[in-house]
Amino acid sequence: MHCKCSKAGGLQLMDSPRVARPINKNLKPLETEPMIGETPTLALDSWLTPNSVFYIRNHFDFPDISDSPDTDWVVNVNGSFKNPGSFTYSDLSKFPKHTQAVTMECAGNNRTDLTPRVPGNQFESGAVSTAVWAGISLSKVLESFEIDPNSKELLFEGKDSGEPEPGVKTQNFQRSLPIDVAMHPDTMLAFEMNGEPIGVEHGGPLRLVVPGWYGMASVKWVRQITALDSPFEGYFQTYKYMFRSGEIPARPVSLMQVKSLITSPMNGTDVKGDSHSISGFAWSGNAEIASVDVSTDGGSTWKPARLVGPSDKYSWRQWNFSWISTNTGHHTILSRAKDKLGNLQPAKSNWNELGYEVNGFKSICLNVI
Amino acid sequence: MHCKCSKAGGLQLMDSPRVARPINKNLKPLETEPMIGETPTLALDSWLTPNSVFYIRNHFDFPDISDSPDTDWVVNVNGSFKNPGSFTYSDLSKFPKHTQAVTMECAGNNRTDLTPRVPGNQFESGAVSTAVWAGISLSKVLESFEIDPNSKELLFEGKDSGEPEPGVKTQNFQRSLPIDVAMHPDTMLAFEMNGEPIGVEHGGPLRLVVPGWYGMASVKWVRQITALDSPFEGYFQTYKYMFRSGEIPARPVSLMQVKSLITSPMNGTDVKGDSHSISGFAWSGNAEIASVDVSTDGGSTWKPARLVGPSDKYSWRQWNFSWISTNTGHHTILSRAKDKLGNLQPAKSNWNELGYEVNGFKSICLNVI
Repeated sequence: MHCKCSKAGGLQLMDSPRVARPINKNLKPLETEPMIGETPTLALDSWLTPNSVFYIRNHFDFPDISDSPDTDWVVNVNGSFKNPGSFTYSDLSKFPKHTQAVTMECAGNNRTDLTPRVPGNQFESGAVSTAVWAGISLSKVLESFEIDPNSKELLFEGKDSGEPEPGVKTQNFQRSLPIDVAMHPDTMLAFEMNGEPIGVEHGGPLRLVVPGWYGMASVKWVRQITALDSPFEGYFQTYKYMFRSGEIPARPVSLMQVKSLITSPMNGTDVKGDSHSISGFAWSGNAEIASVDVSTDGGSTWKPARLVGPSDKYSWRQWNFSWISTNTGHHTILSRAKDKLGNLQPAKSNWNELGYEVNGFKSICLNVI
Repeated sequence: MHCKCSKAGGLQLMDSPRVARPINKNLKPLETEPMIGETPTLALDSWLTPNSVFYIRNHFDFPDISDSPDTDWVVNVNGSFKNPGSFTYSDLSKFPKHTQAVTMECAGNNRTDLTPRVPGNQFESGAVSTAVWAGISLSKVLESFEIDPNSKELLFEGKDSGEPEPGVKTQNFQRSLPIDVAMHPDTMLAFEMNGEPIGVEHGGPLRLVVPGWYGMASVKWVRQITALDSPFEGYFQTYKYMFRSGEIPARPVSLMQVKSLITSPMNGTDVKGDSHSISGFAWSGNAEIASVDVSTDGGSTWKPARLVGPSDKYSWRQWNFSWISTNTGHHTILSRAKDKLGNLQPAKSNWNELGYEVNGFKSICLNVI
């Protein structure tokens, strides 16, 4: 199957992201109040996303954290704990450091791919990034507070606040997690991102990092943790971040669905010669990636790609495919991923009112010249 | 065994690197012409070293690379190749990208630990860093040039040049590698460091990265690759980077020797309470790390540490040890590493004239208050 590359004339070969070009230090902005921006397309070709181009999806303006960390950042611990109280940023120094590479994707990434279109931030493919995060396992931090064994959820509150939409009461950003997820040893209070203290733009000084989950779970500027005996029903828990399609009962968005993305060459590129290196990333919040297949004929036939590069439990996996083609003209290239639990990336995303979990095949068009 | 912490009064608990503090963006300078600087102590506690604090050991001033990459960077390929010629930076875009985390250590790291002292840059522990490097396997790049099967070595020349020492003729930095090492799929021409184009200060636009070897092998600003029929005998190959101790025949420095380092708490810290988290890194160029042991009594008894965090074939491994101690006063803490080939970190470094491969136990002193 042939396609028609939409960019007039195609991109020049020199524009391939395969060779590192100076990265625009700015995100592709969607909004500035609050700050919402995608990782630029060129930067998506890298396994590690530099902090300066790691995507940002805030719900409110940046909070004032000027009192931290020099005068220490306080996190209150309350609700169903035997010893409620608080801890500070510097108290964390007594716990062992936990480091892991985590791919984080905004639940609304690729929202623009849905038909019919849905409201919300019109993300293309750049609301996904990978960083090496370091901090302390939350379960270790909370041990001495002794959680009530009957607690159902932990509620996390960020310091950011505002009206989520006109007419809705001013509130802090709040999200809860089931106890077993919150207390999993890999769920952490992070203070370091790619070897540097987490900047305020990414939720520093202290950000919850919930590996495998869409980004909304990784609450920024954490200042309060509350143990609840019943499920939390706040705005960002039961109104937003719900998968509603009308046909099935609404359900909350949680783990990242299996997905893959072609990052090189770029869509619409003219490619020369008869051997082409195609590559991209694949990830799933449910399990590690088992395989990626590539189709160079618009989905009629598929061949396996090679998984390459660093592999960490919660990070995306780079893949590569060598395509031999002597047929000049336009070609539609697709990828599909499968995770180790057998979850398959679907050809078509499941449409839903708020545009979450958009993980259908994403094609690029190449013009062989 | 008790020690006496050398820092008057010990450091404050707040100074622990366990909680990320704003990192000084500058290296600990040893020289500025050429640029030589260590990674600051606080930054050594992170698995990933940000580019701004990745150690630098140059032999000459930074070369002028202002003609690159916009007007493209040319690498000449000559000597025993069937099709000598050249390739450019942008030619690399047709090859599959190779990404890996690599720990790089200067052969002279910890030179200050030797007794009697030796000349050379007086490195403490900071001439070691880890980055995620990306580029193209050198073997793929050189395939079409068709190397002569009788070639013995590949010689790499950087664009940097000068007098290595007063009276020695002006030359470019040159180092060779045995063919099997140069053609190993993990030896790469790198253009990306932690997701960003490699800056000129780290050898960009194109740097050879030889995983497992001391840093001198990873030639910066590569502009020429020559296939040789006999061993190269240049200044940096046979005069410098040789292990000479007088007792045994001199031998060239190559793979990083097994080593470990305590990065938290810092030496001389006062620690409170009866439970202390001690951690650090371990690495070996010969194989992955198998185990790390910790002694809290100056080396009399040892207990195993836990290996934690990301694990990539050529990257250092973080380790953690929970030390329960109710004895107040000064304690000497040591670590020792073993790699998967059974190589053991020695208690005492092997003294040698130029101060390379310094990998003896490195202790810290903690004062329990």
